[in-house]
Amino acid sequence: MFFHEPELQYEVTVEEPDPQFAKELQQAIGGVEGEMRVALQYLFQAWATPKEHEEYRKLLMETGTEELGHIEILATAVTKNLRNATDEEREDAAQDDMMRMMMSGQSPRQILSAGESAMPVDSNGLPFNGNYVVASGNLAADMYANVMAESTGRLLATRLWERTDDPGMKDMLEYLIARDTMHQNQWLAALETLDDPVPVPASFPQEKENQEFNYAFMSTHREEREDPDMPWTQGESVDGHGEF
Amino acid sequence: MFFHEPELQYEVTVEEPDPQFAKELQQAIGGVEGEMRVALQYLFQAWATPKEHEEYRKLLMETGTEELGHIEILATAVTKNLRNATDEEREDAAQDDMMRMMMSGQSPRQILSAGESAMPVDSNGLPFNGNYVVASGNLAADMYANVMAESTGRLLATRLWERTDDPGMKDMLEYLIARDTMHQNQWLAALETLDDPVPVPASFPQEKENQEFNYAFMSTHREEREDPDMPWTQGESVDGHGEF
Amino acid sequence: MFFHEPELQYEVTVEEPDPQFAKELQQAIGGVEGEMRVALQYLFQAWATPKEHEEYRKLLMETGTEELGHIEILATAVTKNLRNATDEEREDAAQDDMMRMMMSGQSPRQILSAGESAMPVDSNGLPFNGNYVVASGNLAADMYANVMAESTGRLLATRLWERTDDPGMKDMLEYLIARDTMHQNQWLAALETLDDPVPVPASFPQEKENQEFNYAFMSTHREEREDPDMPWTQGESVDGHGEF
Amino acid sequence: MFFHEPELQYEVTVEEPDPQFAKELQQAIGGVEGEMRVALQYLFQAWATPKEHEEYRKLLMETGTEELGHIEILATAVTKNLRNATDEEREDAAQDDMMRMMMSGQSPRQILSAGESAMPVDSNGLPFNGNYVVASGNLAADMYANVMAESTGRLLATRLWERTDDPGMKDMLEYLIARDTMHQNQWLAALETLDDPVPVPASFPQEKENQEFNYAFMSTHREEREDPDMPWTQGESVDGHGEF
Amino acid sequence: MFFHEPELQYEVTVEEPDPQFAKELQQAIGGVEGEMRVALQYLFQAWATPKEHEEYRKLLMETGTEELGHIEILATAVTKNLRNATDEEREDAAQDDMMRMMMSGQSPRQILSAGESAMPVDSNGLPFNGNYVVASGNLAADMYANVMAESTGRLLATRLWERTDDPGMKDMLEYLIARDTMHQNQWLAALETLDDPVPVPASFPQEKENQEFNYAFMSTHREEREDPDMPWTQGESVDGHGEF
Amino acid sequence: MFFHEPELQYEVTVEEPDPQFAKELQQAIGGVEGEMRVALQYLFQAWATPKEHEEYRKLLMETGTEELGHIEILATAVTKNLRNATDEEREDAAQDDMMRMMMSGQSPRQILSAGESAMPVDSNGLPFNGNYVVASGNLAADMYANVMAESTGRLLATRLWERTDDPGMKDMLEYLIARDTMHQNQWLAALETLDDPVPVPASFPQEKENQEFNYAFMSTHREEREDPDMPWTQGESVDGHGEF
Ligand SMILES: [Ca+2]
Ligand SMILES: [Ca+2]
Ligand SMILES: [Ca+2]
Ligand SMILES: [Ca+2]
Ligand SMILES: [Ca+2]
Ligand SMILES: [Ca+2]
Repeated sequence: MFFHEPELQYEVTVEEPDPQFAKELQQAIGGVEGEMRVALQYLFQAWATPKEHEEYRKLLMETGTEELGHIEILATAVTKNLRNATDEEREDAAQDDMMRMMMSGQSPRQILSAGESAMPVDSNGLPFNGNYVVASGNLAADMYANVMAESTGRLLATRLWERTDDPGMKDMLEYLIARDTMHQNQWLAALETLDDPVPVPASFPQEKENQEFNYAFMSTHREEREDPDMPWTQGESVDGHGEF
Repeated sequence: MFFHEPELQYEVTVEEPDPQFAKELQQAIGGVEGEMRVALQYLFQAWATPKEHEEYRKLLMETGTEELGHIEILATAVTKNLRNATDEEREDAAQDDMMRMMMSGQSPRQILSAGESAMPVDSNGLPFNGNYVVASGNLAADMYANVMAESTGRLLATRLWERTDDPGMKDMLEYLIARDTMHQNQWLAALETLDDPVPVPASFPQEKENQEFNYAFMSTHREEREDPDMPWTQGESVDGHGEF
Repeated sequence: MFFHEPELQYEVTVEEPDPQFAKELQQAIGGVEGEMRVALQYLFQAWATPKEHEEYRKLLMETGTEELGHIEILATAVTKNLRNATDEEREDAAQDDMMRMMMSGQSPRQILSAGESAMPVDSNGLPFNGNYVVASGNLAADMYANVMAESTGRLLATRLWERTDDPGMKDMLEYLIARDTMHQNQWLAALETLDDPVPVPASFPQEKENQEFNYAFMSTHREEREDPDMPWTQGESVDGHGEF
Repeated sequence: MFFHEPELQYEVTVEEPDPQFAKELQQAIGGVEGEMRVALQYLFQAWATPKEHEEYRKLLMETGTEELGHIEILATAVTKNLRNATDEEREDAAQDDMMRMMMSGQSPRQILSAGESAMPVDSNGLPFNGNYVVASGNLAADMYANVMAESTGRLLATRLWERTDDPGMKDMLEYLIARDTMHQNQWLAALETLDDPVPVPASFPQEKENQEFNYAFMSTHREEREDPDMPWTQGESVDGHGEF
Repeated sequence: MFFHEPELQYEVTVEEPDPQFAKELQQAIGGVEGEMRVALQYLFQAWATPKEHEEYRKLLMETGTEELGHIEILATAVTKNLRNATDEEREDAAQDDMMRMMMSGQSPRQILSAGESAMPVDSNGLPFNGNYVVASGNLAADMYANVMAESTGRLLATRLWERTDDPGMKDMLEYLIARDTMHQNQWLAALETLDDPVPVPASFPQEKENQEFNYAFMSTHREEREDPDMPWTQGESVDGHGEF
Repeated sequence: MFFHEPELQYEVTVEEPDPQFAKELQQAIGGVEGEMRVALQYLFQAWATPKEHEEYRKLLMETGTEELGHIEILATAVTKNLRNATDEEREDAAQDDMMRMMMSGQSPRQILSAGESAMPVDSNGLPFNGNYVVASGNLAADMYANVMAESTGRLLATRLWERTDDPGMKDMLEYLIARDTMHQNQWLAALETLDDPVPVPASFPQEKENQEFNYAFMSTHREEREDPDMPWTQGESVDGHGEF
C-alpha cells in the first residue's frame, strides 16, 4: 500500500527554462534507461519475491518506492523547462519567424498532446514499454539486471549533466547521480550475499551442461587466428568452476 | 514523494489456484483498461496541474497513489494463482500428457520470463504502453478521460468476476469494483465543479468555429435518408449552445 | 459497404507551405487524439452493436464514415504543406547551408519513406496503434470513450489552430473543430438516452460491490488530513446511488 | 469523402460458431497480411498520387474503399463466431470444467476488452501498426508493395480456408480469395503500363551506380564455391540493362 | 554458422561529418526499408526453405549474409558522421548558443543512449520491429516481398544520395544502390523460374474461387461511372487465367 | 563482412515434434532474453568500440557472430517441431475435434503467417524490438548489460530444458546453456580488466555527486524503521569509495 507527501524528495529549480532540455530529460522519465523502468522493475521484483526472502523483498520495495519519487522530480523539471520557456518564446515567435523554425526540434507532442507537461515517453516521443522491466523470478539475474539498469541510468544522468549549464538542473542531476551510485552499490552488495552468483541460475546442475563448450572461447573469425592470450581465452574462469 | 507499507490495501486469498485466470488478471494490471494505466494517468495529470488548482492536484495525486496499491493487489493475485497451481499441475503433467497440452493456453512468458510471477503486460502478453496514459494539460478533457478509464476498468473487473468461481478472487474483485464506482463518481463530481465542461476545451471561442457545421448531424448514408428524429438530429444541443 | 466521391468534405487550401506544420498535423492523422482513431473506433463499435440497437449502430456507422473523410482532408493538408514548401527550400538549401540545418526538426521519414506525403503516424513518427481504439461491447462505456476522444481531439485541433497563421489552415481547422463540437454533443445526447449511465456497466448488481468502499473517498496522504470538504468527499454521489 | 450502405459487400453466414476460428480470422483484420493494411495502404497511396496521374489515383482510391468493406465482412464473421458460440459454451462450461480449460487458447481480450466482438488486432492480440502501410511516393515501388500485400493476403485467406469446415466461412473466404486474385492482377497490370519498372526507382541515373557491383552475384559462402550456373549468376539481367 | 572478417565489404569515408545526416542514415539501418529488415528477412526465409529447394535456400542465405555486412557499413557511416562532428560542434556550442539550438533536430538518444554510435532504430528513433520481416513459407510470396523490400530500399538509398554532398557518403550509397539493383534483378529472376507465379499461392485450386468476382474490377465510386477502359478493366488478365 | 557455412554450429534433432514447445522456443529467438537480442547487442557494441580498444571490439564481434549461429540453431528447432508434428496431427484433427481444440494454445501466426516456420517474434507472438538492444557507448555499462543478458538468457534456456522430455531438444539446450556459462564468464573477465568498474561511468568525477546521498540507504517505509543491519545499510560500499 502506497502513500504520498506533497514535498519533493529533492527540490527542483530551473533558472533558464529550456524546452530542448525538457525533451532530453524525457529520456530519464520514460526511456529504457529511465526512472519508470527502475521503479516498476524493483516493484515487480519485490512482488515476485517469496516471504522466505523478506529482506530482499523489503530492499526492492523501498528502492522501488524511492524511484517513484524520482519520476516526480523529473516530471517537475520537465514542466518547469517547458512552461516558463514557452511564454517568452511565444512572444519572440510573433516577432521572429526564424526563432520559430529553430524551435522545430522540440517534440511537438509535448505541446499538442500534453499542454507543456511531462509525459510517460522517451526523448524521441516513444512511449514507455512494459518490456523494459526485467523481473525474472531469479534473484541473481534480477540483481544483475538492476546493476545494469543503474549503470545505464547513471550514464544517462551524467550525459544530461554535461548538456546543461543551468545550475538548478545540474544540482538536481547531482542528486540523482548520487542515488544511482548508491543503488549500483546496494545491488552489488546484495549479489555478494548470494552463495554462488555465477553462472546464473545456480539451480541448474552444471554437470548437465555440454562439458566441451562451457569454458571455451569460440572464434568466429573467418580465418583461424592465434590465441590472443586474453583473460577470456586463457586462465581460470571467473566463476572458479572452469579453465578457459 | 512516496511511501510504502507492507500490508495490502485489501487482503488477497486464492482457494483454487488457476493459471488461466492468472493470465486473464494480467489484463487488469498491464492492459489498456488496467491499473498501471490509471495510476500513471492520475499521477502525470497531477504533476501537470498548476498550483492554482491545488484541490484537483490533491485529488489526482491521492487517487493515483491509491491505484499503485491496486497494481500490488493484482500482482499478488496473479502470483498466488500461478505458484500453487503449477506445483500440483507439474506432478499431474508427469502422469498426464493430455493435461500438459490443455495448459497450452497459458501465457508461456509467465513461466519462461517471470518464473510464475506478475508482469507489466496484458492478458495477451502485450507490454504496457505509455501511450495508454492521457494527461492532456486540460482539466475537463482529463476528467472525461478518467471517467472513461474507470468505465472500461469497471467493465473489465465485472467480466473477470463472471469468469471465476473462486470466493477469494470474487471478494477481491468486489473491492476493486467498489473503488471503480467511487472513482467514476468522483471524476463526474469534479466535472460538475467546472464552469463550462462542454465543448472541451472551453478556452476556444466558439464564434471562431465554422457556424454552419457545429450543430448539424451529417449523414454519410449513400442515399439520402429521412431525418430519423433522434435526440442527436433534433432539439437543443446538450451543451445548451446550439440547436441540432 | 463503403463508397467514395473525389470531392473533399471540406476544401483545403494552403497559402504558405510549412513543412514543420505538416509534421504537427500528423498528430491529427495518426496520433492517439487523431482521426484514424475516431474513424476506426466508431466503425468497430458499430460492428459490435447488435441489431436490437439499430439507431445507435447507424449513428456510429455514419459518424465513423464521416471521420474517414477527415483523414482525407488532413492527408491533403499535409501533402500541400510539404510539396510546395520543399521545392523552394531545396533551392535555398543549395545557397544556404544554415537553412538546411534549421530544417532539421522535420520528420525525416516524411521525405525518406513517403516522398513528401502523409503517413499513418503521429507527429513524432510513431505509427498508429490499434490499441488506441476502444470498442468495449458496452454502449455506455463506448459513449464515454467517444466523448473523451472528441475532447482530446478538439483540444488538439485548437492547439494546432494556435500554431499556424496560414488562413487556409485556420479555415480547415475551424471546420474540424466545429465537427468536434457536434460530435461531443451527439455522444452526450446518446448517453442521456441510456437508463442508468453511471456507474458503468449498469449490468453488474451494485449490491454485490463491497459496500464499505463504494462511496468513500480514500486518502493516501502520508499523514491523516482533515476532510477537505469537497464535492467528492461529502454529499450525495453523482449517480444518486450513494453518499460520499 | 466516404459514404456507407448497411448491406455487406458479400453476405456472411456461420453455421457452427467457433471462437478459436474467430481468433484466427483476426489475422485477416488487423494482422500484417490483413484488410486494415491494404485498405489504409491504398488510401494513403491515392492521397499521395498527384493530379497528373489521375487514373492511378482513381484505381487506388476505389480499391482502398473496397477493402474497407472487407474489414466489415470479417468483423461480422468474427462476431458471429464468438457470440453464438459462447452462449452455448457458457452453459457447458458450468457443467464441464474441462471444456473451460480447453477454451483457454482463445484470446482473452476478445471477451475482456471487446465483449465478444472484432478488434483491430491480429490473431495474437497484437494491435494493428501504422508501419505495416507502405506508401512510398513512388508508383512502381507502391505497385510492388501492393502485389506483395495481396500475395501474402491471399496466402493467409487460403490457409484460413483450410482450417475451417464451416460452409459459410468457406464461402466467404472464396469471395475474398477471388478479390485477391483480381487485385494481384490489377496491380501487375498497372506495373505493365509503367515505362521502366525495374530497377525501382527509374528516376536514379543508373550510370551513377557503382558499375562493378550492380549486376554481379556476390557469394558470402565461407569457402569459395563454383558458379552454380543459375539464372541469377549467369545470363542477361531481368531488367535488360545488364549481364550477371 | 556465421563467420566474420574485420574488413568492411566496402570502404566508408566521411569528409564532412554531419550529425543530421547520421540521423537520416538510421532509416537505412533500422527502418522498415532498411538493411536489418532485408538481412533478417532473407535469413528467416532461408531457414524456412526445405531441403528440396536447395538452390533457393543458398541464394537466400548468401544474400542475407551479404546484407549483414550492409548493416556494418551503415553503422560505421553513422558513427563517423556523429563522432568527428560533435567534437568540433561541441566547441562551437560553447561559443554559440544559436548553434546549439540548431542542432536540436538531432535524435537525442543517439547521444544520450548510445554515446554517438549507431542504433537498431529508424530515423525517428523508432526501434526495429520484427514484424517488418516477411517469411511466409511460400516461395512466390517471399520473392514478391523481396522485390518490394529492395524497391523501397533502393528508393530510400537514392533519396539519401540526394540529401548529401559528401563525396564519401555518395560513393558508399552508389555501392549500396548498385547492390539493390542486383538484388531486384535476382529476385525477379527467381520468380521467373517458378511455374505459375500469379496468383499467389499457386497451391489453391482456382476453380474454388468465387468465379463471379475473380476477374472483375469493382467500382466503389458513389455514382456509377463509365468503364474507364484501362488495362485493369478490360482485356486479358496478367496471369493469363481470366478476362477482366 | 560476414560469411556463412551451411553446417549448423551444433546439430539439431527432434524425436517427438511438439508444436507447443516450438512456440516456447520462440522466446529464445525473438524474446527479450533471446538470441536476436544478444547477437545484435554484441554487434552494435562492437561497431561502437573505437580502434584503441581493439581487443574488446574483436571479443564483441566474434561473440556477436557466434550468436547469429544460435538463432539459426533455434530456427531449425522450431521448424522441426512444427512441420513433422502438424502432418500427423492434421490427420488426427480430422478424426478428433477435441484434439483440434486442444491445439488452440499454439500461436496461430506460426501457421497463418509463416507456414510452420520460425519467426522473429517471442513466445506470445510479440515481434522482436530494437530497444531490447543495449549499446551504450560505455564499455563497463555494456559489459554489465551483457552479463545480465546472458543471465536471463541462461535462465530461459534452463526453464525450456525443464519443459521438454525430447532428448534431441535437451541436448541442444545443454549446448546453448554451456555457451551461456562461457559468455557470462567472459563478460565478467572483461569487467575485471577495467580499472574502476563501479560506479559506472567512471568518467564522471564523484566529487561532483551530492555527497550527502551517494552512500546512504534511504528508507521509504511509511513509519520509520530500525536500521535492519544489512550489507547495504552498514559497512564499506562495494566500490570501496564510501561507507553506507
Ligand atoms: Ca533513480
Ligand atoms: Ca483501480
Ligand atoms: Ca473528426
Ligand atoms: Ca481484401
Ligand atoms: Ca542492402
Ligand atoms: Ca546464445
